[in-house]
Amino acid sequence: MSGANNSFQRALCPLLVAGQCFALMPVSGLTGYDASTLQFRWLSPRVAYTFLSLVGIFCHLCVCVRELVVADHITYSACAPPIFFAVTFLATCFYLRLATKWPDLVSKWQTVEQTMLKDYGYPRNFERRCKFCAAFMLTASTVEHLMALYSCLLRALPRSTGGLDVVRAFYTSWFEQAFKMTEYALWKSLLLQLSNFLATFTWSYMDMYVTLVSMALTEKFLQFGEGLRAVRGKAAPLKFWREARQLYDNLCCLTRTVDEHISHLVLLCLASDLYFICLQLFNSLKNVKTLYGYIYFFYSFGYLLFRASSMCFCAAAVNEVSQKPRDVLYAVPAGTYNAEVERFIDRVTTDEVALTGFRLITLNRRLILTIVGSIVTYELLLVQQGNGQGSFSEELEYAANITIM
Amino acid sequence: MSGANNSFQRALCPLLVAGQCFALMPVSGLTGYDASTLQFRWLSPRVAYTFLSLVGIFCHLCVCVRELVVADHITYSACAPPIFFAVTFLATCFYLRLATKWPDLVSKWQTVEQTMLKDYGYPRNFERRCKFCAAFMLTASTVEHLMALYSCLLRALPRSTGGLDVVRAFYTSWFEQAFKMTEYALWKSLLLQLSNFLATFTWSYMDMYVTLVSMALTEKFLQFGEGLRAVRGKAAPLKFWREARQLYDNLCCLTRTVDEHISHLVLLCLASDLYFICLQLFNSLKNVKTLYGYIYFFYSFGYLLFRASSMCFCAAAVNEVSQKPRDVLYAVPAGTYNAEVERFIDRVTTDEVALTGFRLITLNRRLILTIVGSIVTYELLLVQQGNGQGSFSEELEYAANITIM
Amino acid sequence: MSGANNSFQRALCPLLVAGQCFALMPVSGLTGYDASTLQFRWLSPRVAYTFLSLVGIFCHLCVCVRELVVADHITYSACAPPIFFAVTFLATCFYLRLATKWPDLVSKWQTVEQTMLKDYGYPRNFERRCKFCAAFMLTASTVEHLMALYSCLLRALPRSTGGLDVVRAFYTSWFEQAFKMTEYALWKSLLLQLSNFLATFTWSYMDMYVTLVSMALTEKFLQFGEGLRAVRGKAAPLKFWREARQLYDNLCCLTRTVDEHISHLVLLCLASDLYFICLQLFNSLKNVKTLYGYIYFFYSFGYLLFRASSMCFCAAAVNEVSQKPRDVLYAVPAGTYNAEVERFIDRVTTDEVALTGFRLITLNRRLILTIVGSIVTYELLLVQQGNGQGSFSEELEYAANITIM
Amino acid sequence: MSGANNSFQRALCPLLVAGQCFALMPVSGLTGYDASTLQFRWLSPRVAYTFLSLVGIFCHLCVCVRELVVADHITYSACAPPIFFAVTFLATCFYLRLATKWPDLVSKWQTVEQTMLKDYGYPRNFERRCKFCAAFMLTASTVEHLMALYSCLLRALPRSTGGLDVVRAFYTSWFEQAFKMTEYALWKSLLLQLSNFLATFTWSYMDMYVTLVSMALTEKFLQFGEGLRAVRGKAAPLKFWREARQLYDNLCCLTRTVDEHISHLVLLCLASDLYFICLQLFNSLKNVKTLYGYIYFFYSFGYLLFRASSMCFCAAAVNEVSQKPRDVLYAVPAGTYNAEVERFIDRVTTDEVALTGFRLITLNRRLILTIVGSIVTYELLLVQQGNGQGSFSEELEYAANITIM
Repeated sequence: MSGANNSFQRALCPLLVAGQCFALMPVSGLTGYDASTLQFRWLSPRVAYTFLSLVGIFCHLCVCVRELVVADHITYSACAPPIFFAVTFLATCFYLRLATKWPDLVSKWQTVEQTMLKDYGYPRNFERRCKFCAAFMLTASTVEHLMALYSCLLRALPRSTGGLDVVRAFYTSWFEQAFKMTEYALWKSLLLQLSNFLATFTWSYMDMYVTLVSMALTEKFLQFGEGLRAVRGKAAPLKFWREARQLYDNLCCLTRTVDEHISHLVLLCLASDLYFICLQLFNSLKNVKTLYGYIYFFYSFGYLLFRASSMCFCAAAVNEVSQKPRDVLYAVPAGTYNAEVERFIDRVTTDEVALTGFRLITLNRRLILTIVGSIVTYELLLVQQGNGQGSFSEELEYAANITIM
Repeated sequence: MSGANNSFQRALCPLLVAGQCFALMPVSGLTGYDASTLQFRWLSPRVAYTFLSLVGIFCHLCVCVRELVVADHITYSACAPPIFFAVTFLATCFYLRLATKWPDLVSKWQTVEQTMLKDYGYPRNFERRCKFCAAFMLTASTVEHLMALYSCLLRALPRSTGGLDVVRAFYTSWFEQAFKMTEYALWKSLLLQLSNFLATFTWSYMDMYVTLVSMALTEKFLQFGEGLRAVRGKAAPLKFWREARQLYDNLCCLTRTVDEHISHLVLLCLASDLYFICLQLFNSLKNVKTLYGYIYFFYSFGYLLFRASSMCFCAAAVNEVSQKPRDVLYAVPAGTYNAEVERFIDRVTTDEVALTGFRLITLNRRLILTIVGSIVTYELLLVQQGNGQGSFSEELEYAANITIM
Repeated sequence: MSGANNSFQRALCPLLVAGQCFALMPVSGLTGYDASTLQFRWLSPRVAYTFLSLVGIFCHLCVCVRELVVADHITYSACAPPIFFAVTFLATCFYLRLATKWPDLVSKWQTVEQTMLKDYGYPRNFERRCKFCAAFMLTASTVEHLMALYSCLLRALPRSTGGLDVVRAFYTSWFEQAFKMTEYALWKSLLLQLSNFLATFTWSYMDMYVTLVSMALTEKFLQFGEGLRAVRGKAAPLKFWREARQLYDNLCCLTRTVDEHISHLVLLCLASDLYFICLQLFNSLKNVKTLYGYIYFFYSFGYLLFRASSMCFCAAAVNEVSQKPRDVLYAVPAGTYNAEVERFIDRVTTDEVALTGFRLITLNRRLILTIVGSIVTYELLLVQQGNGQGSFSEELEYAANITIM
Repeated sequence: MSGANNSFQRALCPLLVAGQCFALMPVSGLTGYDASTLQFRWLSPRVAYTFLSLVGIFCHLCVCVRELVVADHITYSACAPPIFFAVTFLATCFYLRLATKWPDLVSKWQTVEQTMLKDYGYPRNFERRCKFCAAFMLTASTVEHLMALYSCLLRALPRSTGGLDVVRAFYTSWFEQAFKMTEYALWKSLLLQLSNFLATFTWSYMDMYVTLVSMALTEKFLQFGEGLRAVRGKAAPLKFWREARQLYDNLCCLTRTVDEHISHLVLLCLASDLYFICLQLFNSLKNVKTLYGYIYFFYSFGYLLFRASSMCFCAAAVNEVSQKPRDVLYAVPAGTYNAEVERFIDRVTTDEVALTGFRLITLNRRLILTIVGSIVTYELLLVQQGNGQGSFSEELEYAANITIM
């Protein structure tokens, strides 16, 4: 059955398999057609890999925190490395926890899919879109990572004595803090690079994951909405409305279940995106000197913005499409209006169906503007601080120079 | 039929025709009495004109962005020219897109008008009000533009060698940045002026357009509300309530359809107004030296405030009038209370009918205070930044002077 | 009938008569027992007095604005005098407009009172409380005004040449700006003082007025709520619930009518209180030198805070008490639950009954914390600005001194 | 009956008895099994102890305020001591007031417990959890207090002349301000220390108290929710739904009653936690010099954060669990859907059941993020202020030094 490729499990498969390369989501049987193929075991190479990755990221985190404590000067920018690794560390933990519950979640999803199968089928082209998203994400992240490597290489070249020493120069310049604490060795560098690599991907992965899961939910609601719109303004039997209401109820419960499993991930995602967008904007206002610096900055900032906003819009779409049945229900002709329609209307208008960030925020369209407003406010506050200090000391220097003359 | 002049299509006609002079809304048949006269064709002189205008504004935009990048010092005020042209460029694009869907939208509107025609007629004097608004907008914008020209002429006069050279001095002073990049030529100047002229009008046009469309919606709801208020506290048959509810439903759907077509325009409008109000307020706090400067500043700031607030209040009115039926429905006598009334109450109390800004914000009365609060906060933040730097360097200069003595 | 003294018209009478002494609310027949005694005529000495007051306040306003423009240095504190007179000017206009509609409003109120008279009577002791509030307000405002006079006298004494010249010194010091523009004359001083006096009282009067009107509304809802609570959990006939719902509906309509008449006054009140609280807090952070300065500052700031918060809490109470019927309705026994109770519940839970500030904000409990939060934020922003400049120039002076040595 | 140990009165008993050691909640008979054993008398040693404590805290408060006025330099940090004692003074007053109503409240709670006893029993292990929380709180607070003592001792040691003089040095260094005003005496020191001790505990006690009361409410809703979930999707008779709805109604009323008694305490708690978190964060950004300083800072800040967030999450849980019945109600099969279920749905969806802060804020999950957002904003504003002044004067000093050379 070709349509089954558009099922939740099959469509998300490429993304999850990609995630497993980065030590995320250590579940076996992802490529199967049925939830029963999925299995999580604590004693498996996948989980071991995840733990290794956690250890690596933890090392990075320790180095960064130590650096911060030693520097004894906490600024907004200086906090970025420890926050980056703390976020990826937490994310890996969250995915590990999610993995233990993944078979269960997919099986619940499949139950809903089975219910809808006869009347609605699978969402069309959903698998293709997911594949495209996963591929896009992997490519874009790889390009970003390569650009970062190249940027570091440019800095390392002058310090190298030529030949293969460029490798040493490169690594000591990249993991400067780490190799202050311990002596340089190639194997250490390679391990550090691997875990750094995993961390970088984990960071982008989160947004993409939330985006795709939201899209999957949205698709289900859209399918349902299409079926409903077909009877808009027409007479439909009580039985139709009862089944529609029950299906809607199932979809809402599914959304809640998904939310219970990923809401902490969503919050982490939102918080880290907010932090890094503010940071990049803040940096953008300082001078970027070289052309390559410009390109790198705009690429990575643009990618971050794209990821964050696509996540927000996709997650908000779940809330939006869950409200679509309203119009049809309001327009039910007086003749066929019945207790089931009334109950359905009550259901739709009194319940807020949406993904949330640890249930602290509801991801809807209004949230997006709130976030933009926060970014503008924090940015103005940060700029002021930065400006105040920056231009201040420069001008003081100027004043001092005059007085010395 | 004289009343038909108050139909949506006829009433908005003057405004839209005026818009076409500025390369907006390239639809043919605007002056007709029926939606069927409207037609959009990609291959028409109107669309060609729009594309020419887009090219012109895009050139301006490029010049401004280049200037900003070269200056290498990004401040709030320095961003104004690129943002101005970006906004007008986007607005022209949005109007082009809207034009493709305009015949459809008007025809939907006409359907609702036909339904209401027998019992409610057309809104009275609506055409006259629209004409007045359009005339007012055109006059006020022209005056502002002329004042800007005069202001620039004052600056240009000292640089002129007399005679016809004043034209050259005028244009080189106005398009300073452009003529840094390319040599001066009269035809270039005229083209630049034309597109500058179009951009300036487009900017004011947006607010006025949203205002008038909101007013048209409000009129419909008001007509409906009047009809309803006539039966307040009186017995009315079930059939009356059913028809009232269905009509209300139609009006809500119309509002949603309109919103789908113009919500991105509304967001652009709100964002640009917010930006330029903050900017002008910020400038007002710096010294304006000459009397003419004072007059020009207060005129243009006042006009901006008037446009923005009239847009906000008119758009919010749609939400307000959509809630009017509540009072009548709550007061339906117990004897004639029936399932239709109950459904009507449910409809009115559970649905939020309003124009939105790209569905990110709902335009209601509360929004207005939120905007005012944001302006105050941003202004305080900006002033601080400006003040900090301004008064700071002055006082430092003062300190330095003392030390030099 | 002694109870009739607690009617709306009688209870507010002392406050309104006091208002007339300050040229507010120029309606005749305030002391009557019936709305029919109230009358507004444009050609009456009361209205003439109001216009004279408006002229006087307008003169003050002009002097202040001129001063501000000449000084050419707009700061937060410098804007206080023009804003003060603008607020009182607007308030006087609003009261004039309100006066034209007062007979109508009171007659609507009386209709509701008549409906409730048999079952609920008039609110007990309401007149006494209103009298107390009016007396308190008058006393507190008089004391504040006298303290301001004394404070000015202290400043004037050193400039006086003794004897009756102290009067000249006093007035020239008080109306410094005015007597810069025109020559000193006793009659001018007395006129200026009179209008200044009126403005000061008008300012406090607004808060007190809104407080008392809110209290009157609250009383009505409380009376209604008490009657309802008597049947809590007991069986009551359908007729009882129908009448209760209709009465509740009347009360809600009354609240809306009152709101339509005073909402702009409420907004003015809120905005001016917010501005002056921020201002006084801001000033408190600067040094107040003398003991008398301390006492005066704390008295006037405390009085302002008291007025503002009592207004907010009383106005919010209207919203709170309008929600009280919920509990009783939820607890209606299953046996006597009927369509009327259901409609009543729908009414109470779907409608927001509250006073508003020009319908831009709803006055409820939550608003109070929003206001407190705004004050804290603005204060932090202002302090920073002030601090930055203040301590800045002092330290610069210090630095300069060192370098000069 | 062993289960009765999990009743509200028994479970909170350890916490309340601990509170009595710190002069809070002067009610007798706390250890009883029945509300009838509780008794509040104004003339009792417990109340006398409370009043003594109030006098002691008031003395501290006066000393701190005097210090602040004399210093004539009001900064954010300098306000901390008076605010600390004002908060604890108010808290003690609030507990005294609460004590007068405690027997009443517990008896209402017991009525609800009796209703639920047959079908639901008492919440399991609730007493154990409460005991653990009380023990944890006491231990953690004691440790913090001891660390503060030790920290002060370290400062006092160099000033001591050896031997028993270390006591004098210790106390004069701790109560520096007090012993500036009055001569040193050991008995004064001991009294001061006692009341300081009481104040410190009162401060932590508030959070823990609100946490436990919230937990007790949550437990009741959870028990109810479990019973309901047992019939999810199954047919249940009308009588079942009626009783469920009535019980839910009772629980909501109980929540409201509890809220009426403790809402002012909750607001005080929230406001003081917000203030002190901002303060500690602000301090953390300054340099903490010694290792012991680091440990003490992180311990006390961590404890504060833990207390505040556990309070917020527990209080928000009341709101969350009160919404749990929704899912079950939405899923009632069409066959057994009846008027009682409809009323129940109306009840759950239209009423907001939650603890509040003086009814100005509702304690729900969304609030938590609002608080976090406020902390970030205020922190950025404060840092700026601090930074501005700190780094400013340092750099100026530097500039001045150069000029002197």
